Amino acid sequence: MTTAATSPVSKTKSANSSSSSPSKRIFNFSAGPAVLPEEVLHQCQQDIWNIFDSGIGIMEHSHRGPVFDRVIDEAKADCRQIANISDDYEVLFLQGGATLQFAMIPMNFLSPETTADYPDTGVWTTKAIKEAKLFGKVNVAFEGSKVGYAYTPSDSEIKQTPGAVYMHYCSNNTIYGTRYPKMPSSNSPLICDTSSEMFSRPIDINKHAMIYAGAQKNLGPSGVVLVIMRKDLIAKGKKNLASILSYDNHAKNDSRLNTPNSFGIYVIGQVFKWILKQGGLTAIEKRNADKAKLIYDAIDNSGGFYKGVARPDSRSHMNVTFRTASEELDKKFIAGAAKLEMDGLKGHRDAGGMRASIYNAFPLQGCKVLADYMKDFASKNG
Amino acid sequence: MTTAATSPVSKTKSANSSSSSPSKRIFNFSAGPAVLPEEVLHQCQQDIWNIFDSGIGIMEHSHRGPVFDRVIDEAKADCRQIANISDDYEVLFLQGGATLQFAMIPMNFLSPETTADYPDTGVWTTKAIKEAKLFGKVNVAFEGSKVGYAYTPSDSEIKQTPGAVYMHYCSNNTIYGTRYPKMPSSNSPLICDTSSEMFSRPIDINKHAMIYAGAQKNLGPSGVVLVIMRKDLIAKGKKNLASILSYDNHAKNDSRLNTPNSFGIYVIGQVFKWILKQGGLTAIEKRNADKAKLIYDAIDNSGGFYKGVARPDSRSHMNVTFRTASEELDKKFIAGAAKLEMDGLKGHRDAGGMRASIYNAFPLQGCKVLADYMKDFASKNG
Repeated sequence: MTTAATSPVSKTKSANSSSSSPSKRIFNFSAGPAVLPEEVLHQCQQDIWNIFDSGIGIMEHSHRGPVFDRVIDEAKADCRQIANISDDYEVLFLQGGATLQFAMIPMNFLSPETTADYPDTGVWTTKAIKEAKLFGKVNVAFEGSKVGYAYTPSDSEIKQTPGAVYMHYCSNNTIYGTRYPKMPSSNSPLICDTSSEMFSRPIDINKHAMIYAGAQKNLGPSGVVLVIMRKDLIAKGKKNLASILSYDNHAKNDSRLNTPNSFGIYVIGQVFKWILKQGGLTAIEKRNADKAKLIYDAIDNSGGFYKGVARPDSRSHMNVTFRTASEELDKKFIAGAAKLEMDGLKGHRDAGGMRASIYNAFPLQGCKVLADYMKDFASKNG
Repeated sequence: MTTAATSPVSKTKSANSSSSSPSKRIFNFSAGPAVLPEEVLHQCQQDIWNIFDSGIGIMEHSHRGPVFDRVIDEAKADCRQIANISDDYEVLFLQGGATLQFAMIPMNFLSPETTADYPDTGVWTTKAIKEAKLFGKVNVAFEGSKVGYAYTPSDSEIKQTPGAVYMHYCSNNTIYGTRYPKMPSSNSPLICDTSSEMFSRPIDINKHAMIYAGAQKNLGPSGVVLVIMRKDLIAKGKKNLASILSYDNHAKNDSRLNTPNSFGIYVIGQVFKWILKQGGLTAIEKRNADKAKLIYDAIDNSGGFYKGVARPDSRSHMNVTFRTASEELDKKFIAGAAKLEMDGLKGHRDAGGMRASIYNAFPLQGCKVLADYMKDFASKNG
């Protein structure tokens, strides 16, 4: 065997003076890839070297061997426990992100003779609509562009098509910082892109035919998309597709039609364990609401110095968007935050201003520091 | 900022007695995902916590921020240096593995009116052929199934189609343990799936229109496929494809059409740096030849106790396949090897027997230990 080498990853939080191993971490408000729980990072450091005392690191194990079997089986079981997912649904870990899902969904279920409903609530649904139009008829069931994407529609604002093959919506819009306060109703199978808020609050799986989420916001690293799909929908998929573009093939092969992103699935599994340890989705939702309130209060109590982008009833608890009176002042705000070790606060180019992404793993303390800075900055620049 | 926490990852090789952090690593002959260089694993342990002293781990950085810009730019530059890749080619990091490439290649370049040539040399080309047939005409230019996939064809054995839109071959066949000793010639644009031997020996990029490789054998973790593609071929891709299935879109967006597998790309970049430190592909080829010779000699000098699967002139230097006289004895061999901390020696179910995958990062010492064991086992069971 190879020379035994150490993996002395400490779980302590004491400072480390080694210059080759900088220890200090800052507040990371990135919209995604985004902050991960620190205890998950420490576990990764160990398991990259040697997982389950197998003598082999997690990245180096066959995706068909017993170690990875355990990793993926635990991840699936924990996922089912977190969201109370019944056996009517498959839990799949695929590649290609939400963008490949934008194409695979209509490739599998839409055709030139049928229609799907897509309420358009921002950049990501606009992209999904563009892909769907390649494969069949699309009804843009709500035109968010007409209201600056400032809110999500109520049920009565969504113009559904009788007999639609599905309705696709995005539950949280990262760029504009809006979310559906309550999931929409639909007469057709309901499909949800919940990439930017997956497992940040309870979700009623049974009201959906499919839920999917790129992992890189709330679940793990980029390069994996979690797909939860009702088996009767999977069975309706077209049969003449390339193997890797068929949900049915992925389901029949337990997400291992080909080599999956095994390390990504491993990290997601660790995050699932962390979610369960936090008390599950009800506890996570409460914590996220407390975090978001700190920043929204700083906006609302600023006497108009900060303006929120989202209409209050549609405010996201994951991505808080706001701006000052000028782009110049926005820049000054972001530069000042960087000096206080807050990174990633610049808004998306389509929305401008600032965006604080405060996913599950983002600490409450970071929201406090940001809210305090907002008050201080307003008092000095108001 | 968060409480400073340590990332005290030692680079020493001293034994570590902590039971929660087992230090011992064994010889990993897995065909993929496969062994990675230990110094790369140590670097990953550090950078997962905090990369470039940014205060943020590599998995948590935006794929559009300056840290990841540096990571991907260095990876591309090092890749170009390793294989002397000119500006006529794009270097892309995509998702979906070789299996998605099996579909994307014909989706982009083949149509019902045109023909592509596919010499069939094993399971992976058979899969590629199946996908291509969904999109156009396929000429199986060599039927390896008729010779038990024991060797790869010479140029005269490949029946090319005049005017083929491309010829696709697999340079190393993981399952049967064969490789092309010399790359084939082609009158049409040449496309190579070199997943299981990428950067294990010099490769003449300029004779190819496209080369691709799933990362999980010689380049990094699973979930990334490296694509090196001539720009004039990219320009010929069909225009009515889903965004994420068009090479042209990926090239125009510098592999960031959507969120890529950023951690996977980071690890590949570290492996590229390791390859350069080893002396590049000529030095790597020599080392791999020495490693393979140890095991092939043990086969050839066993007086017929071991039989190699591949015809000697087609022997792979990455996957050494062999068997004893019976399945029972094969099982005994594998069980005995496991006791000596050699893992992953069971052959693929389609080939049977044993397979020793000895990719770039697999140590010479491991090949010595296996060869010694082979001699010992033969003398006790011959």
